Amino acid sequence: MKKMLLVYILLISAFALYVLRFEYNSQVNSSWEDRGLRGDIGETYIMITFQSGLEYWKSPLKGFEDAADAFGVTVEYRGATRYDAKEQTMVIEQAIARKPAGIAISAIDPQSLVPAINKAIDADIPVVLFDADAPGSQAYSFLGTDNYKSGVMAADKMAELLGREGEVAVLTLPGQQNHEERTKGFRDTIKDRYPSMEIVEVADGHGDAMVSKDETLRMMKEHPELAGIFVTEATGGAGAGEAVQTVADRHPLQIISFDTNKDTLDMIKNGTISATIAQGTWNMGYWSLQYLFHLHHQLTVPAPSSSGENAPLPVMVDTGISVVTRSDVDDYYAK
Amino acid sequence: MKKMLLVYILLISAFALYVLRFEYNSQVNSSWEDRGLRGDIGETYIMITFQSGLEYWKSPLKGFEDAADAFGVTVEYRGATRYDAKEQTMVIEQAIARKPAGIAISAIDPQSLVPAINKAIDADIPVVLFDADAPGSQAYSFLGTDNYKSGVMAADKMAELLGREGEVAVLTLPGQQNHEERTKGFRDTIKDRYPSMEIVEVADGHGDAMVSKDETLRMMKEHPELAGIFVTEATGGAGAGEAVQTVADRHPLQIISFDTNKDTLDMIKNGTISATIAQGTWNMGYWSLQYLFHLHHQLTVPAPSSSGENAPLPVMVDTGISVVTRSDVDDYYAK
Repeated sequence: MKKMLLVYILLISAFALYVLRFEYNSQVNSSWEDRGLRGDIGETYIMITFQSGLEYWKSPLKGFEDAADAFGVTVEYRGATRYDAKEQTMVIEQAIARKPAGIAISAIDPQSLVPAINKAIDADIPVVLFDADAPGSQAYSFLGTDNYKSGVMAADKMAELLGREGEVAVLTLPGQQNHEERTKGFRDTIKDRYPSMEIVEVADGHGDAMVSKDETLRMMKEHPELAGIFVTEATGGAGAGEAVQTVADRHPLQIISFDTNKDTLDMIKNGTISATIAQGTWNMGYWSLQYLFHLHHQLTVPAPSSSGENAPLPVMVDTGISVVTRSDVDDYYAK
Repeated sequence: MKKMLLVYILLISAFALYVLRFEYNSQVNSSWEDRGLRGDIGETYIMITFQSGLEYWKSPLKGFEDAADAFGVTVEYRGATRYDAKEQTMVIEQAIARKPAGIAISAIDPQSLVPAINKAIDADIPVVLFDADAPGSQAYSFLGTDNYKSGVMAADKMAELLGREGEVAVLTLPGQQNHEERTKGFRDTIKDRYPSMEIVEVADGHGDAMVSKDETLRMMKEHPELAGIFVTEATGGAGAGEAVQTVADRHPLQIISFDTNKDTLDMIKNGTISATIAQGTWNMGYWSLQYLFHLHHQLTVPAPSSSGENAPLPVMVDTGISVVTRSDVDDYYAK
C-alpha cells in the first residue's frame, strides 16, 4: 500500500512537471520573436483594382494571397467592375467603412483617387499602391513596373529580332502615363542605340482589339517596309496579331506585345507574336501585403514624430520585367 | 486496493492523452502556414560593407538585425576595414566559404566586386546589394537611395532657406556615381525651378574634413555673395561647418549636408548646418534580410525555368529620403 502511494505521488509529480513544461513552451511560442512573423486570421487586407474582372489581376492577387497565407491573415478582393473612377472611389470608401488592416490599390488614374486614399490614411488604415500610382496621395509606397525601362527592353529585343535595322512603329495609348513612358523608353533606345532603325509612326490603338487591328493594317499598307511593331498593352497586341494573320504575301512583321494573358501567350506559341514583356505582377501583390502587414503591426522603422516627410517603408519598388518568347512561353501560363 | 488501481489507470491515461496532445500541437506548429514566417537559429545571414567602422552602417545593420530577430535567424557583420576593393573581395570570398543562408553587400564601387558576387550566386548563396550598387553583377536586387531625387530635395530645401534667390555652390566627390547623381539632381532643379538662383561652383571636397573646410573658405572668399552650399557627404559637411564657424562678419551661409551621423546632427542642433538629407538606411538593412530570407526559403515567385532574365524579387527598391532640420533633429540621434 505504501509502495503504491509512492508510485502515485511520483506519477502526479511527473504529470505536473509535464503540464508546466507544456505551459512554458506555449508561453514562449506566443512571444513575437519566437513564433516568427505571424498575424491573426481576423486581420483583413483588401486589394482594390479597376476593371476588376481582367485576367491581368490574377497574378498580383495570387501574390497578395500567398503572403496572407504565410502570415495567417485574411484577404479580400474588390474593384470597380468598369473603367470608372467614381466607381473605384466608392469601392474604396466602402472598404474604409469596414476598418480593414490595410488596403492595396491600383489607381485608375493619377489624380481621381487621391481624396479617397487620404481619407483611408486619416482613418489610420495603411494604404499602398501597386501597378498604377497616384503620386499626389499620402499612400506609403508604390510597387510597380519601371515603364521606361520596359520600353528600353522592348527596343533591344526588337533590334535583336530585326538584325538591328528596319522600319518600326508603336501602337499605344497616348495620354496615359504608363504607356507614354513605355513609348519614350522604346523611342529613346531606338534613336540612341540603333542608327539603322527608324520609328515611322506612333499610332493610337485605343486599348481596343478592333481599332488596333485596323490601325495595324493601315500602317502595314502605308509603310510597306514596316518590319516591327511594339504594342504597349495586351488587347492591342492581340489586335495587331489578328491583322498580321489576315495578310499574306507581305514583308514579315515582328510584334512585341505587353503582359502575359492567355491570348497573348497563345499567339506567341503559334508564332503570330514574337515576344511580350512580362511584368513582376506576383511581386506587386506579395510585397504590397508584406508592407501593409508591417504597417498594421508597427514593424516599420520608427518614424521621427515631428516630420511628416519621413518614410517608414521603401517609397518606390521596381518589381522587375522579363521578355517572354516562344522558347519559354509555356512557363508563363497560369498554373 | 482495487479503487487505487482504478485511479492509477485513469491517471496514466490522462498522462498519455496529455503527451499525445502536446506532440500533436508541436506537429501543427511545425507546419509553415500555421507558424508564420520563421527561420532557424542556425541560418546565418551576413552583411558586408567597406570602411566597416563607419557610424553610417549602424542603422542598416540595426534593420538587418531587427528582421533577423523577427524571423528567429542569425546575422553576422563583416567588412573591409579600409576603402579597399581587394580587401572587400577577400571578405566576400571568406563569407562564401562558410556557406551562409545569404549575403547583403554594399559595393565599394560598381565594378570591382562583380566576380566575387557572381561566385556567391554560382554557389547558390543568395546575394542582394544595398546602399551602393554593382549593376553588372547577378545579385537579385538593389535597395538604396534614389540619389538624383535626393539632390532635387536638397535644391528645393535650399530655395526655401534662401527665399528662392542667391548664389549657391556644391561640394562633392566628382567621379563617384552616387555623388554625381546627387549633384545632377541639385543642379537640374536649381536651373529648372529657380531662375533667381545660380550655381557658381561645383568643388571637390575629397570626402575629407580638412580639404572640405579649405575649399569652403576659398569659395566664401571668391564668391562674397555665396549664400548656400550643398555638401553631398557627411565628412565634407562637417568640414564646411567648421569653415563657417571660423568666419565672422560675412553674408550668412546656409549649409545642407548629407546623412545623420552624430557630428552632423550636433551641427544642426547648434545652427551651423541648416539641414541634412536622411537616407532610409534602416529599410535598406531590414528589407535586404527579408529578401535573402525569401530566396533562401524559396518563397519568391517561381521563376520560369528557361529564362535567365526573370526576377524572383523586386529588382530595385527606393528606400526613401527625408530632410532633417533643427525642429526634428532630436528624433534622428541613435537610440
